[in-house]
Amino acid sequence: MRTKPPSGTAYARHMTVAFAKGHGTGNDFVILADDAGQLEISATVVRRLTDRHFGIGGDGLLRVVPTALANEADVVAQASVAEWFMDYRNADGSIAEMCGNGVRVFAHFLRVTGRVVADEFHVATRGGTKRVTVLGEGEYAVTMGGSAPVDTTQPLSIHVGERTWSAVGVLLPNPHAVAFVDSLEDAGSLLDMPNVLPASAYPHGTNVEFVRALGPTHIEMRVFERGVGETLSCGTGACAAAWAASRHQGADLGARIRVDVPGGTVYVEEDERGIMTLSGPAVIVATGTIDEGLLR
Amino acid sequence: MRTKPPSGTAYARHMTVAFAKGHGTGNDFVILADDAGQLEISATVVRRLTDRHFGIGGDGLLRVVPTALANEADVVAQASVAEWFMDYRNADGSIAEMCGNGVRVFAHFLRVTGRVVADEFHVATRGGTKRVTVLGEGEYAVTMGGSAPVDTTQPLSIHVGERTWSAVGVLLPNPHAVAFVDSLEDAGSLLDMPNVLPASAYPHGTNVEFVRALGPTHIEMRVFERGVGETLSCGTGACAAAWAASRHQGADLGARIRVDVPGGTVYVEEDERGIMTLSGPAVIVATGTIDEGLLR
Repeated sequence: MRTKPPSGTAYARHMTVAFAKGHGTGNDFVILADDAGQLEISATVVRRLTDRHFGIGGDGLLRVVPTALANEADVVAQASVAEWFMDYRNADGSIAEMCGNGVRVFAHFLRVTGRVVADEFHVATRGGTKRVTVLGEGEYAVTMGGSAPVDTTQPLSIHVGERTWSAVGVLLPNPHAVAFVDSLEDAGSLLDMPNVLPASAYPHGTNVEFVRALGPTHIEMRVFERGVGETLSCGTGACAAAWAASRHQGADLGARIRVDVPGGTVYVEEDERGIMTLSGPAVIVATGTIDEGLLR
Repeated sequence: MRTKPPSGTAYARHMTVAFAKGHGTGNDFVILADDAGQLEISATVVRRLTDRHFGIGGDGLLRVVPTALANEADVVAQASVAEWFMDYRNADGSIAEMCGNGVRVFAHFLRVTGRVVADEFHVATRGGTKRVTVLGEGEYAVTMGGSAPVDTTQPLSIHVGERTWSAVGVLLPNPHAVAFVDSLEDAGSLLDMPNVLPASAYPHGTNVEFVRALGPTHIEMRVFERGVGETLSCGTGACAAAWAASRHQGADLGARIRVDVPGGTVYVEEDERGIMTLSGPAVIVATGTIDEGLLR
């Protein structure tokens, strides 16, 4: 990580950066405070900080920066509505548009550090502005936007070993393929990416959800995230699962649907305009400073 | 985690505990500062703090406590020599005697926080007092004690799938079985514990090292830790590998043997009394405070 030095100023020899570690239903993040908008974070530094043995460890990194100081026009345009920009990076260093669990953790960091005091506010993301509502201590609701079926004329199917399920395709706008199962054990150990056909329906791959409906407002699921593997939780995956359950399993998405994921419980609802809201917990586990050795 | 409150004093509502995260060749630890000797850490709290998604994450936990304040007679007896006691816990919450990489990280924490200023000092452990020598910035040598062959009359062997190697048994005093291989790839993906025979030689199981000699003072290795799986580094495993290489591969343990592990490089030497010294790097990645929610 390199900071842009004010002109004429030498680097501080023992620079430190404030950080926190937090999670939402087990989906965990390294959070970096960048109030001055000065941190230039390379993919290498992201990988180093999110490394679970050599760094702090996390599924991703959230940089906390004033929206007006972001170096991206689509983000700066949100500055009049959203004071803070969630600069989200995947653990592999790649830039991502949005992360449903990440927004709650980001919002919680803003609240517990006093950067935001309102109970309702907006967060700028590369996937557009998200409205955050504080539901209680460490509980947040976040608007996720609408969803659309995958554009394909052929039936979708998911394959794991000898097992096959028909699938429902959903775009949030990131891609999902949802299978309804009799038991979450049916998909086995899920060490490898399930095969989703036809491949043409998902030119850039897809996330896969295995879902069991437990009642009109209660489902449980496992998720295999594209490029990652099976995870404890996936915010857009929970929305995709609830959306598919409401269209194909009689679940009532006008009500609040409880979604049990391996890392905990979140809730999904959809308003009359088709906008989905994801609610759930956020936890800040530790706060401190990062050794300068990691920042070079 | 529960602190013993001074009599007549209520718990502080927002108690925090100072922590650090560090590693030695990728073997990583949560470090808790307990200068007052007041932290009672249950196995549940250790598991929570070392959890990589819901906690901070680590292979183990190091509690930093004045030796005189330890509640264990064998430890307190070391107080005249060693000011600080390394209370080491495995990530599963169990108590462990020693950890070769952990002592370096523990020593580095003492130095960077100013708790110790000397270049040579002793650390109390449940496995006896260890002498620490500062070799350079973040580089430490630690006495590991002597070693002995495993007491068995039958030849030892290690089995992975269809592959079989004859093995050298070493006690440090924790158990090791060392196989010499032509290539570190020979043992394959090592997802499961190798089978070591005869089982009677290791009534409580064993760590397994696959070692390739690269020269008289240079070996490389992989290690499968008992109850854990393949790891990036194991301090006693490096000593066992160097010891076995000196007895069976012509390596010169009177000189300093370089041992390449997946997480980096350490060095092992043995003095004329048979006492081995392990040297290598230690890094403190981050420091801060732990949220009180984790401590209950």
